[in-house]
Order: sequence, then structure tokens, then C-alpha cells
Amino acid sequence: MNDKKIEPKIEARILKGFRDYLPQEAIKRNQLIKTISNLFEQHGFSPIDTPALEYSEILVGKGSEETDKQMFRFKDQGDRDVSMRFDLTVPLARFVSQHQNNLVFPFKRFHIAPVWRAEKPQKGRYREFIQCDFDIIGSSSYLSDLEVLSLVHSFFSQLKKGYRVRINHRGILNSIIKEYTPSEETTNALRVLDKLEKIGPDNTVKELILDAGLEETKAKSLVSLLDMLKNASSNEDRLNIISTKIKPSELLNNSIINIKKTLDSLGDYSQNTVLDVSIARGLDYYTGIVFETQLIDLPTIGSVCSGGRYDNLTSKFTSRSLQGVGGSIGLDRLLAAYEELEWHSDKDTRQGILIAAISEDDIAYSREIAKDLREKGLICELAVEISKIGHHYKYADTNKRKFAIIIGETERESETFSVKDFSISDKEKATTKVSKNDLLDFLK
Amino acid sequence: MNDKKIEPKIEARILKGFRDYLPQEAIKRNQLIKTISNLFEQHGFSPIDTPALEYSEILVGKGSEETDKQMFRFKDQGDRDVSMRFDLTVPLARFVSQHQNNLVFPFKRFHIAPVWRAEKPQKGRYREFIQCDFDIIGSSSYLSDLEVLSLVHSFFSQLKKGYRVRINHRGILNSIIKEYTPSEETTNALRVLDKLEKIGPDNTVKELILDAGLEETKAKSLVSLLDMLKNASSNEDRLNIISTKIKPSELLNNSIINIKKTLDSLGDYSQNTVLDVSIARGLDYYTGIVFETQLIDLPTIGSVCSGGRYDNLTSKFTSRSLQGVGGSIGLDRLLAAYEELEWHSDKDTRQGILIAAISEDDIAYSREIAKDLREKGLICELAVEISKIGHHYKYADTNKRKFAIIIGETERESETFSVKDFSISDKEKATTKVSKNDLLDFLK
Repeated sequence: MNDKKIEPKIEARILKGFRDYLPQEAIKRNQLIKTISNLFEQHGFSPIDTPALEYSEILVGKGSEETDKQMFRFKDQGDRDVSMRFDLTVPLARFVSQHQNNLVFPFKRFHIAPVWRAEKPQKGRYREFIQCDFDIIGSSSYLSDLEVLSLVHSFFSQLKKGYRVRINHRGILNSIIKEYTPSEETTNALRVLDKLEKIGPDNTVKELILDAGLEETKAKSLVSLLDMLKNASSNEDRLNIISTKIKPSELLNNSIINIKKTLDSLGDYSQNTVLDVSIARGLDYYTGIVFETQLIDLPTIGSVCSGGRYDNLTSKFTSRSLQGVGGSIGLDRLLAAYEELEWHSDKDTRQGILIAAISEDDIAYSREIAKDLREKGLICELAVEISKIGHHYKYADTNKRKFAIIIGETERESETFSVKDFSISDKEKATTKVSKNDLLDFLK
Repeated sequence: MNDKKIEPKIEARILKGFRDYLPQEAIKRNQLIKTISNLFEQHGFSPIDTPALEYSEILVGKGSEETDKQMFRFKDQGDRDVSMRFDLTVPLARFVSQHQNNLVFPFKRFHIAPVWRAEKPQKGRYREFIQCDFDIIGSSSYLSDLEVLSLVHSFFSQLKKGYRVRINHRGILNSIIKEYTPSEETTNALRVLDKLEKIGPDNTVKELILDAGLEETKAKSLVSLLDMLKNASSNEDRLNIISTKIKPSELLNNSIINIKKTLDSLGDYSQNTVLDVSIARGLDYYTGIVFETQLIDLPTIGSVCSGGRYDNLTSKFTSRSLQGVGGSIGLDRLLAAYEELEWHSDKDTRQGILIAAISEDDIAYSREIAKDLREKGLICELAVEISKIGHHYKYADTNKRKFAIIIGETERESETFSVKDFSISDKEKATTKVSKNDLLDFLK
């Protein structure tokens, strides 16, 4: 109704470190999210959601200094100091503390949602990404460690590619380090050991001496113990070696019992589980089991699912002590490996059917056919232009439909359709005559 | 490893206008999102996603002045002026402009994602909410209007409650207003008419005179025309009345043809479609059909699905002209009416089975049963505590499980289980003995 002023155009651009999902990528991501969400639900975890924005005081100081710096933090219209969440764990702590009287413990929740970090953008890392977290809060039993690990195995054992869960117990790791390290340097030693696989044994010895203050003989014998454990033939052997070589203590003893029970109860899954005492997964956070998951053919993408047990999730907010165990599935890493993982037997991502009318007279009939197929659960797109057959085929093909059916007078009268299958490249074989009665079976 | 300092507790609280989703609410919302997302997919719409944050210049000035004020806007770490998206339409315009060479037109997309608006918090309205948008971009055919309306009908006709889609065409509305109103006052007249249902005919006449400058006779005859249209017995009658009473023009003629073709092609759905010329749906935005959807038994919750046709979605960013038609399903309003809508035949939101072991000896067997049921697609929670039967039952009940199965030596040896059904209140009838072979059938 108003006269439009001609204004200069604004460049259509996206912020650095952020990305759009075009249909083909969005379809893949949604499929993977659906698979993960079904997995969580089938294991009895319940969904929750929390806001993207929280009071900054809720979020700061719970991650590292680095995550504090990376937070998108600002003053809102009411002059409140607010931040966008940088993970789903701190919001979980706030959520559990706030709603503790309305939750059923042990509380098994999952949360699949975006988080934001102003990291330096680099290949494959974005400032907005989706986390897929699952946790059991309020249980100290090894049965909850077991349940978390079972879920991980149940997910990755569906893949056609091999995977390995590397598991450790912080009580074992801490006992080992204590035996070799001056007590005030244990954190540094932990930091060095965590890099063992990356920097190799010789550099580890050097760094243990320089950075963690170990005597040369101790550094060497620590690294050789780790090497012996790595080369042992079974997890049982590894636990035996640890029991023999490390001074007994209540902490060590309980930790070994905990992890032994867990490993024993894993059943078939224990074949894909390796005790690896070099794994620490963050310095302060975890207190019991810790784990990470590698795809054997794709070691370079890093851990695709990590987690562990922690004490006192909620200490910042409440004096009630709630420990938990959980993990996080690396959606982006799995998506990056989507093709290699052959997640779906059909490599072709073509989906659904395009139904198009040749003339206005064919519209009502086309719509009936489409309605019927949709009610049977099929993806069925109706062309919104009256156009030539060639044009419809081109659209169906570029829009990644699997089938196209063009409806004209002949098709309406004979109730028989030429179904074109775009996943077949041989032109003669690609088209099949199908009667209306057989259509659903053929398309399925 | 470090000594923990005792710090004062921070109050676990959420920002004003925001909310958490506890499991029961999150389950409902997820179910509804899944239903809506399947609906979009079955109609051949493809998912996309865009970032929560955009350059502010992309977002400002596209909604109203009010939405500009409501944006969460700030400077990021790189001193960029950024904002959280307040709707999914402006990001769509940016997305289509930026990726136009990689999209297939007509482009049918859906987008289900949160948006943020610093509105004054009020009952049922939050500063973060999920929008469910679907649009067809790059088609001017009435067939795309038809496809959008069919989708709406296909969704709401599943409900057990009645619904009504009220449809209008801005070309008709503008032609009517032009006939009665001084040309410089049409926007004000539009604004007044949009309130007709709310303020009643007498006040509408008054406001048309005072605010839109109509002569008294014209105001009265405009309102009486609208009344006549309202009381007409069919949409065809309404179109005939308009053709008779309003001066012919190309705009009016084309608009009537467009809406007539659309209504004629709706088939059975036309029963639930009413032509209502008072509907405007925003002043500047829409140019063709506009529609809103009411639940007949729940008129107070307002429109649960609205939309229409607009010209030139992308004019801010590109000189390529792309028109579109689409709508948005009101997730929050539907959730608020979830119980009344009887979306799921089962009123009880109980889900899944709790399986619990009486002693450590029963764990391996319990885990086998659970694994089997999960592989068959059932929701199956394993208890993570060794505990008494009563304790497990209480947990299963409060955690809203439908069934519980407690496994001890007797159950292992007989391979027969007492399955307790928490949806049956009669204690004697609630428990059934089921053999392992019949378990899956019984639980399904």
C-alpha cells in the first residue's frame, strides 16, 4: 500500500565461524539427531531443554578461563548481564539445583541443543554447534557407569566400521601418578601424560622431568609402565599389572573393583573396550571412570563420544551433593565422517516422489494420488507449476527426488503411471509402468 | 586434585521470560515437533538451518519498529554488531539471497528453530520460543497457495477437534477498502477492519470515521457489506457478492480468479475453509492470499497457523525478485491446548519399561532382556541401583514408566516375569505373569 523507497542493497552474508545448513546437509544432520535421540529414549533417558541465554553468573567460572573468554556475553534490555550457553553441563547443574524437588533421582536426562563459543574459526570447527549430552545424576553405583557405557556401545556397534572405547578410572590414574611424582606437581604430570599418544614416549619422559619435576629414573619407569600396560593382552592383565606395581590404597582398591565390575558386566561389548590409563579427559572435572571413543578406520577425527563420572555437579548452586556420570556424542565429527561411516545402506540421499500434472485438468487427480501416498507415510512433493515433462524431470532430479510421476489424460484414464527412478542411470531401465493398485508397493 | 575453596552459593535461577522444559513437557513438545516435521517432509518440504546470530544489519528494519527494539543485540568479541534472530523469515531471505545459485526453485523449505524477542513477559508468552515455518519460494502459481493450504488442512484434519481456516486475498481486501476510503487513509482503514471481530461493528464504524476519515454513510455501508459477507451461506456466494458490489478492476478480477481456483481445488478441505475479507495479517508484508486457523472449541487461543503470499522476499539483499507463499504453525499455542486436543489417543503420558535386578547375580540377565527389548524399538530403562521391589516400583511410578519388571532368581530360572502396569489402578489387575517368549507382544 505504501510507495516503496529504493534502498541500497545489504550484502547477504553470514558471521565468521557460523554456517547455514542447506537441505542435503540438514537432512543428514536431522537423520543423525533422530538416531541419537531414539537411542537415548530407548535407554530410558528423558529429554529436557533449557534457555539459550542464562545470567552470566550462572555460567562463568565453571568451564575453563578460556571458555569464559569465548562466551557471547552482553547486557540485555533490562541491563542484566547475560550470556549464551557454551555447553549443556553448566545449564544442567543449574537446572538440577533449581528443580531438584520436581525431579526423580537417579535422574537420567538427555539434551540435544546448540551451544555457542567465540573460538578462533578453523576448518570443521564452528562458533555454533550442537551438543548431544546424556547423564545419570544422583547415583554412585557402578551400574550407572555401566549403563552409560552400554549406551555408547549400543550406538557404535550399529556402524559397519570398527570402533574402540578407551576407558580409565581417575582413581587409578591418580594413584599411579602419586607414586612417581612429587605431590605438588601431580597436575602437571597429568597434563603431560594426557599427551602421551600425541608426543610419543621420549618426549613424554623429557616433559615429565622438565614440567612435572620427576626424577629421570621415575619418569622413565612411569613411561615404561604405561608402555607395558598398553601392550598387555587383556584388560584383566592390565588390572593385574597395576595391582602389582602400584602401592595399595583404599582409593586404588575401590577404583580397580569399580572398573573390574563394569568391564565384567559389559558382556560382548568388552571386546571393544580397552583400559588405557593415559586418558584423563580434563583435569579437575572427572573423579571416577573416564572414556573416549575412536573409530578405528578414522583415528584422525578424534574421539566421537567422551565422558565420565564427576562428583558434585551442583556445588556452585546448592549444598546438596549430587554426583553423576555421562557422556557427549560428537555430532559434528560423526557428520564429517558420514559418508565413510555408511550410516545408511543407501548411499544416494535421494528421497521421495515428485508428482506433477500436465494440465489443469489433471490437478485434482494428482492431488488425490499424493494425498493417498502421504497418508501411507511417503514423502510426496506436488509440483506447483504446470509445465512440460522434461522440466518436471529436471526439477525432480536436481531436487534429489528418487521418483517422478507425471500425470496427464492417459494416466488418469488408464490409472497406470510411468514411474521414473532417478537413482537408475540407464535411461531404458529407469522407467516402469505401474498400475494405481501396485503404486504403493512399488514406491516402497 | 586441588583443594577446593568454599565459595558462596549462587542462586540457581532462570532469566525473566525464559523457561526450562522438564521431561514431561519436553516429551510432549518433542512429539509435536516430530509430527510437524513429518508433515512438512511428507509434503516435500526440505529442512534448512541458519545461525542463531546474524549481523544486525541483516535483521533490523525488516520486522516492525517494535521487533527492532525487542532484538537481543550486542557487540561480539570482534566488535561486530550482532543480533539473535527474532524470526525465521528474515534469515530465510538472507539465506535464499546468499545461496540462490545452489538452491532448486521453486524452493520448498521448512525451518523449526528457536527465536528470541525481549517482549514484556506475560502468561504463555516467552522471550525464547520455537517457530515452525514452511514456505515455497519462487513460484507465483496458485498451485503453491493450494499446496500451503493443503498442508495446513492435512495437519488439522487429524485432530479430533474441529478447526476452520479463514482465508482472504489482499487484492480483494484492498479493492474493497479503496472503494470506501479516501486514498491516503487506506492503511488506517485496514488497521481498523483487522480489529472488526474484536471490537464489534458499531465501534468499527466509529473508528472508520474518526481514524480512517470515512464519510459516515460509507463507513456504515462498508461494515454492512462485511456483515453480509459474513452471513452468506457459501464462499461462492461471498465471491458473487464481492463481484457485484465492488467496481471491477484487473486487481479485483485476478484476485477473485486466484482464490476461486484455490478454493475449488481444495476438494473436501473446502468444507473447513471460510472466505473472510476482514483478515489482513500484517499491513505491508502480504500481497496475495492470507489465512489464519482457528480451533473451533478453543477460539480464545487465537490463530494456531497463519501465513500468506508475499512479493519480493529478498528485496533487501538482491535485485532478483523472488515471491513466495508460506505459513507458520503455532507450536506453543498447540502445546497449551495439548490435553484438550487429545493429540495422542493415550491420555496417560507414561512411557516404556523399567527393568530392575534384585541382586548382583541378576544383572547380566536383566541387561540381556533390556538389550533385546531396545533392539525391538521399545523404551527400556535399566535401574542403576540394587534395591528392594517397593523402591523400584516407586521409582518406575514417579518416573512415569508404564511397566516395571523386577528380576530375581525365580524369574531367571522360570523365564517368566511379573509385569506391573502402572496405568491400571486396580492393584490386583495391574500385575500379569508373562513368559519371556510372550514379553515383546505383551509390552507392545
